[in-house]
Amino acid sequence: MLPMSLLSIIELLAVIATAAYGILLAVRKEMDVVGLFTVASAVAFGGGTLRDLFLDRQPLFWIANPHLPLVVLVLALVSGFLPWLLKWMERYLLLPDALGMGLFTVVGTQYALDAGSPWFICAILGAITGSFGGVIGDILCNEVPSLFRPAPLNATCSFSGAWIYMLASEFGPQGISASVIGVLVVFLFRLAAVRWNVQLPAVRFQPGD
Amino acid sequence: MLPMSLLSIIELLAVIATAAYGILLAVRKEMDVVGLFTVASAVAFGGGTLRDLFLDRQPLFWIANPHLPLVVLVLALVSGFLPWLLKWMERYLLLPDALGMGLFTVVGTQYALDAGSPWFICAILGAITGSFGGVIGDILCNEVPSLFRPAPLNATCSFSGAWIYMLASEFGPQGISASVIGVLVVFLFRLAAVRWNVQLPAVRFQPGD
Amino acid sequence: MLPMSLLSIIELLAVIATAAYGILLAVRKEMDVVGLFTVASAVAFGGGTLRDLFLDRQPLFWIANPHLPLVVLVLALVSGFLPWLLKWMERYLLLPDALGMGLFTVVGTQYALDAGSPWFICAILGAITGSFGGVIGDILCNEVPSLFRPAPLNATCSFSGAWIYMLASEFGPQGISASVIGVLVVFLFRLAAVRWNVQLPAVRFQPGD
Repeated sequence: MLPMSLLSIIELLAVIATAAYGILLAVRKEMDVVGLFTVASAVAFGGGTLRDLFLDRQPLFWIANPHLPLVVLVLALVSGFLPWLLKWMERYLLLPDALGMGLFTVVGTQYALDAGSPWFICAILGAITGSFGGVIGDILCNEVPSLFRPAPLNATCSFSGAWIYMLASEFGPQGISASVIGVLVVFLFRLAAVRWNVQLPAVRFQPGD
Repeated sequence: MLPMSLLSIIELLAVIATAAYGILLAVRKEMDVVGLFTVASAVAFGGGTLRDLFLDRQPLFWIANPHLPLVVLVLALVSGFLPWLLKWMERYLLLPDALGMGLFTVVGTQYALDAGSPWFICAILGAITGSFGGVIGDILCNEVPSLFRPAPLNATCSFSGAWIYMLASEFGPQGISASVIGVLVVFLFRLAAVRWNVQLPAVRFQPGD
Repeated sequence: MLPMSLLSIIELLAVIATAAYGILLAVRKEMDVVGLFTVASAVAFGGGTLRDLFLDRQPLFWIANPHLPLVVLVLALVSGFLPWLLKWMERYLLLPDALGMGLFTVVGTQYALDAGSPWFICAILGAITGSFGGVIGDILCNEVPSLFRPAPLNATCSFSGAWIYMLASEFGPQGISASVIGVLVVFLFRLAAVRWNVQLPAVRFQPGD
């Protein structure tokens, strides 16, 4: 794995970026600070919480790392007073978010491997960890989850990266970290999908509906 | 209980039927294949997942049976290319769905009995297993759950069947399988409710509102 | 703690009051009795269920206390026939609801303390137990959760009361029950917020939007 301190920094940046997306979502619904904090927490911690519940991991990662929800609370309070700050931040969120998606995907996949799950299940749990927080945030905001609608590839990057990570762990050459490969694949795949707007098409009963 | 191989076949048919309902729901919302797979999984596995989480059963049944989500993924991918196939399938879904509702109800009720829960709780967990997948699917699609609105009886069939199953287990004559009775009661009750459009009325503050 | 029998009475009143709010919500959506029971259960038990799942407490409190969902079922059935009864009850719901919010907050906070969680996490789990049932009820009704929108303070009362309870437990003078203080603080804070309509403002990108 990556060195612990680097891991913690990526994790913190990823939590800030995903929480910021949640806050932007909540402000658009004219929520108060309670809503900002809850939606931000759901986006930042929802995927990992689902994974921990599905795999029966205790304590939940945000209970074991209380500095993470504390950072989200501070961010929500600051945004309550200075919402334009978030809007300004928005343009800088893509990189830490994509990096965090890579990290969360690899961590979620590894936890499922640790629990002895078959590879297909591990890839699903990696994708849930990496990209399902936004689904819970959208549900709290009463929106059809954007993850399910045509938009630059998101869960697909997590899901593919999870497979690459498992293949690299199993068959990769000695001395190259599978974690680094997994995180980078998700990160670059996501950036490319956003850059060239790669989408899955909407499925319709009649073509051209 | 029923013989294992017959059980597996009913289970597989039920997963396909419920997943197909989920895909139909997702296509109506113009989702992409990620949405189709997730909503289909939610409808097929949501009720059983809630039951497993509520009763702390590990591993979750779809993690222990990874061929089930794999079948759902294949169905979602095929539907992504041939959505009319699903629409054509729709007319044949009632029977496997009703049979699956019977099976899931009996299994869920028995798991709750195994956990030592009182009968009323067992009937609720049977009904959750048998009919709550659709609720989670509807929430993912940003719809008021159809299970809660007037429509042919659904959760009511599960809930009643769970009681019949428990009564038959406790007081039924030797040599008659309570499971078979439970599954059949739910199955026939559901078919009758659809055939004669038996509904619970909407509750209104003023009659005739 | 408070004497057991008084605790049970407050708990029962709180479940009835929160379930009644859920039923009122469900009737506005023209649901049938299945919907009334489910939404009422979600509002009454949703916060405590999230807490039990997050802390891995087994069995869930409503499975261990099956008389509580039974009371909710009776209330839903009665409301199905006499919905005006609920509307008439509405004016009397504030007191038992606020008292229940106090009780649930203190119980949830204490359970998190028992699990060895840090104080900040305990306050969050107290607030989830005290006020998140309504969020799940709103989601089941396809509404933006009212807890996140400007309205008389709700989760804020729980969150503050949880801190007061922990401070009183740790530093309070001998012979004064921290539980009584915690419940009373939440109760009075909530009543005051409703009485004088104390709200958190909606956050907007532009002031005055």
